Amino acid sequence: VIPCAILTIGSEVLDGRVTDTNSQDIALFLEEFGGQVISKISCDDDIEAIVAALRFVTPNARLVIVSGGLGPTSDDLTREALSSYLGDPLVRLPEVLEELARRYTARGREFLEINKKQADIPSSTLILPNCAGTAPGFVSHRPELSIFCLPGVPSELRVMLQESVAPHLLQLGIQKASQYTFRVFGLPESVVAARVSQLLDNHPLKLSYRSHFPEVQVKITQLTPGADLDDSLLSKIRTVIGPEYVFSQGVSAPSLEQVIGNLLKEQQLTLCVAESCTGGLISKTLTDEPGASSYFLGGFITYNNELKEKLLGVRKETLEKFGAVSAEVAIEMACGAQSYSHSSLAMSVTGIAGPDGGSPGKPVGTFFVGLSTAYESMSYEFSFASSRGRIRRFSTYKTLDLLRRRLLGLTVPE
Amino acid sequence: VIPCAILTIGSEVLDGRVTDTNSQDIALFLEEFGGQVISKISCDDDIEAIVAALRFVTPNARLVIVSGGLGPTSDDLTREALSSYLGDPLVRLPEVLEELARRYTARGREFLEINKKQADIPSSTLILPNCAGTAPGFVSHRPELSIFCLPGVPSELRVMLQESVAPHLLQLGIQKASQYTFRVFGLPESVVAARVSQLLDNHPLKLSYRSHFPEVQVKITQLTPGADLDDSLLSKIRTVIGPEYVFSQGVSAPSLEQVIGNLLKEQQLTLCVAESCTGGLISKTLTDEPGASSYFLGGFITYNNELKEKLLGVRKETLEKFGAVSAEVAIEMACGAQSYSHSSLAMSVTGIAGPDGGSPGKPVGTFFVGLSTAYESMSYEFSFASSRGRIRRFSTYKTLDLLRRRLLGLTVPE
Repeated sequence: VIPCAILTIGSEVLDGRVTDTNSQDIALFLEEFGGQVISKISCDDDIEAIVAALRFVTPNARLVIVSGGLGPTSDDLTREALSSYLGDPLVRLPEVLEELARRYTARGREFLEINKKQADIPSSTLILPNCAGTAPGFVSHRPELSIFCLPGVPSELRVMLQESVAPHLLQLGIQKASQYTFRVFGLPESVVAARVSQLLDNHPLKLSYRSHFPEVQVKITQLTPGADLDDSLLSKIRTVIGPEYVFSQGVSAPSLEQVIGNLLKEQQLTLCVAESCTGGLISKTLTDEPGASSYFLGGFITYNNELKEKLLGVRKETLEKFGAVSAEVAIEMACGAQSYSHSSLAMSVTGIAGPDGGSPGKPVGTFFVGLSTAYESMSYEFSFASSRGRIRRFSTYKTLDLLRRRLLGLTVPE
Repeated sequence: VIPCAILTIGSEVLDGRVTDTNSQDIALFLEEFGGQVISKISCDDDIEAIVAALRFVTPNARLVIVSGGLGPTSDDLTREALSSYLGDPLVRLPEVLEELARRYTARGREFLEINKKQADIPSSTLILPNCAGTAPGFVSHRPELSIFCLPGVPSELRVMLQESVAPHLLQLGIQKASQYTFRVFGLPESVVAARVSQLLDNHPLKLSYRSHFPEVQVKITQLTPGADLDDSLLSKIRTVIGPEYVFSQGVSAPSLEQVIGNLLKEQQLTLCVAESCTGGLISKTLTDEPGASSYFLGGFITYNNELKEKLLGVRKETLEKFGAVSAEVAIEMACGAQSYSHSSLAMSVTGIAGPDGGSPGKPVGTFFVGLSTAYESMSYEFSFASSRGRIRRFSTYKTLDLLRRRLLGLTVPE
């Protein structure tokens, strides 16, 4: 395990204006190489503060990744700070200067005197090309300590980690660790963790759980450099979690909407959706995926009862007798969507997302999912007491997961 | 300006498993009191690391907020670290112990020996009650340095900042600063910043811009303690930004969907939506708001041309002659949605979200918005070259902002 530190620089990170996703991206990148972040610091664009932060982290870290402060303005002081920390003067690189001038001109921007400082780096460091923006980065390699300085623009940072930092790590003999992810829906994180950890007690693996509501992600990292993950172990992990709960797995495991898209394409089926309480979230999620038009015909958002009747043919008597939030209405919504659109399958959801509208018999968080084909239709009842946003997100996942189970011929739990 | 530092503790923050939103919440809270974060550190649950981090930040900070490491497990070491840093033994508070036992029992959980450590605090500190969870926090007040220790659970942290930390700050004589936010859509951040900053050059105010794509938020903080923000200045700011671009303003400025909801309710109008490229995102956004059912009737997601014809009555000839992404289809979609639902207003959007599907005449990012009432209908063309996700988000805002402008009788730009 290689001890690492992250330094993010800029007032926008300190004062809460932006969420610091850079340090998360850097940490996940370092984990791919078996790195372990032991310290993370954010400070202002201030030479003394940056130097103090470097002095604080470097006694224990072997790799330091600094992001931010490489822009052309007088606020950007990371170059000067590194020069001071390394005791190493800044030099202006003519080939970088030329490249910068070319890029500014290509973008129709004037290349001003102030922009020239972006060609300065401490004399003992190496330039790190930035193909996603103007400011290049640089790296200082000293025995047992490498410091990478990268721009703070998230899109540039992400590209540079893979394209400029990764090759240097390989040169340092730091190999990429094998990683594998299981994405799980329908079990709490504590249950997944208890099931998996008992299996992995004696393996040189790093296990990490990430709860990205309402799914749980299990990531396995091989700690032995150069070794692959054992296939039979991966299959045991799947078994112990409960295979039907693992909706996706792999080196890069696809999302639930991608899994469904692939299943529908494979089986040459089309889908239509009728939503009430989710108000469009299911359709939005399905169409996040490019190319969804090959299987997703469309959706009906019937927030209002009259539209449920008119659009989907839900009967007035059904609404009156059972209420809009009922198994019967969920079935009629799905039937209506299917027969209207001639889709192979239709899913529907009706429920109470709150915070108001609950009753003792049907509290906030009650929802019904309907499923219909040309030959059959059915409904399922669920209950998930939480906030409006979480209820909507949970019922969307539940609906999509029911569809996934149907497409795979799995049983429906609960 | 009061110099502050933030310490977030836990491996999940370091290794990238979670996005560190706690430090952002803390920074925004401190800003309300005129605090300025000068340093932010994350470290592991490790006594030495926590003490080192405290020693690093305390020479310069007057307020330190620590979050995390107050749970009941052996990993949770913030109490021990503070005891070591302050040179102050831990004491077990019987009244806290009693309260903890009561809470565990009330939640049907056993109160184990291990849980008792949550009643320990360094002897010179004061307890900070936690009404949102089990673990209380504590605060150490020394001359010129107060250290607040709070739990790492985001929902508990947010409540405790307001309910337990704020009263202590007031006791320390640190007053809440007046703050005011403008939310802007339709202008780039650089333009908004240039317009506002020229106006505020000589005022003792802190200006901060937050780009929450695709809107720009301008926050004004009064730096003179106890002073209010000047109403005439606020109105000048609105004027200089361009009043029609400011969709919301105030101490807590509502979202675009809230503004639209309020306008529709005031004017007793109802809305229906027909979406193609946004695939449900507009309806989802409108129904994020509780109570949307009083003005939002529903939506049609017609991803497929056949559904555009069948559901919305878009004519086959229109689709063939102008294509699904055209002003004519946008108008017919809005007309169809309005006449079918009998809503007062209907909005529609059809476009190319990409990454595929563009053509030289209609590149990715081209979209048309339609608006229809019982008496008239019209359409607008826009172009926004970007990624699929951003195009969908931008066209959703554009559609909602067009509706806002219509409801306010404003002109439509571009």
